Amino acid sequence: MIKNSIAQITDKQQETAAKIIKELQQENARNTEQGFGPFLAAIYDDNGNLIAKMPNTVAKDKSCLCHAEINTIKAACKNLNSYDLSPFNLSIYVTAEPCIMCMGAIMWSGIKKVFYSVNSADVEKITGFDEGFKPSWLEEFAKRGIEVFGEIEAEEGRKILRQYISSGKEVYKPSDR
Amino acid sequence: MIKNSIAQITDKQQETAAKIIKELQQENARNTEQGFGPFLAAIYDDNGNLIAKMPNTVAKDKSCLCHAEINTIKAACKNLNSYDLSPFNLSIYVTAEPCIMCMGAIMWSGIKKVFYSVNSADVEKITGFDEGFKPSWLEEFAKRGIEVFGEIEAEEGRKILRQYISSGKEVYKPSDR
Repeated sequence: MIKNSIAQITDKQQETAAKIIKELQQENARNTEQGFGPFLAAIYDDNGNLIAKMPNTVAKDKSCLCHAEINTIKAACKNLNSYDLSPFNLSIYVTAEPCIMCMGAIMWSGIKKVFYSVNSADVEKITGFDEGFKPSWLEEFAKRGIEVFGEIEAEEGRKILRQYISSGKEVYKPSDR
Repeated sequence: MIKNSIAQITDKQQETAAKIIKELQQENARNTEQGFGPFLAAIYDDNGNLIAKMPNTVAKDKSCLCHAEINTIKAACKNLNSYDLSPFNLSIYVTAEPCIMCMGAIMWSGIKKVFYSVNSADVEKITGFDEGFKPSWLEEFAKRGIEVFGEIEAEEGRKILRQYISSGKEVYKPSDR
């Protein structure tokens, strides 16, 4: 497991994280059969309550902004009626490392912990999606008090992305690239 | 004027950019009196048609995602009925340098040119807003074929941000920072 400098996790929490990521992966694989992009995110509070869960809807909603994390943070702000999620002690779980846009969104939301499966280098290699330039985000998140845990159940995550591509599904991006 | 390596501009285009930025600044100053955040963005096509224009609505809409650029790109995708804006040859004009989230959004949209006024270092110094970590974005945008022009009418832009702060308006951010 990849972690940033402030990340701390117990065995029990690690088990819970793996369980949630596995559930997201199963749902993610089903979603791609219905025209969703191959990424899914969920936000939980510290008591295990699901606050919001949303897939990538770029192609379905015809909006380049509709990444899974963006959709999920939008829904969480709406459900909790606040732009400031920090008082709720929330964690975001994602089937892949956030792209540069979603990194920003997570920082501005006040979410406290990030758990992801497949890293961006693998996403780019397998799918051809552009994830953006990856600066020292683990350190930058640590500076802002955000714990990051990565590469959870990553082999299964990569498998789902490979299936997405081998079945000829859409790699949505600007058509001039 | 700041430019990235692929940016090319004629005197006439430079005049037009300054005119649009000045108009946005005037509207931006008025918007802050009505509870909007102190940032405004607009997307134009090459023929000078306005495709979308939106202010920052983070506090008003209670969503940390509602930066001016995000709101404007969302509206442009809706107005043009596509996640891929690249065939429309669009430029985005913003009263300040995009934060890391909005940088990502611009990259994924297919917008071809970015014109901004106040740079992020000045925004942070004047207002206390966090703009994110600023990697080599000018070069990264150039790699993706996106021209960037910055610090247009920046003194007037800084003045409006100073007024926003001195009048005691909200600097919305996670409350734990």
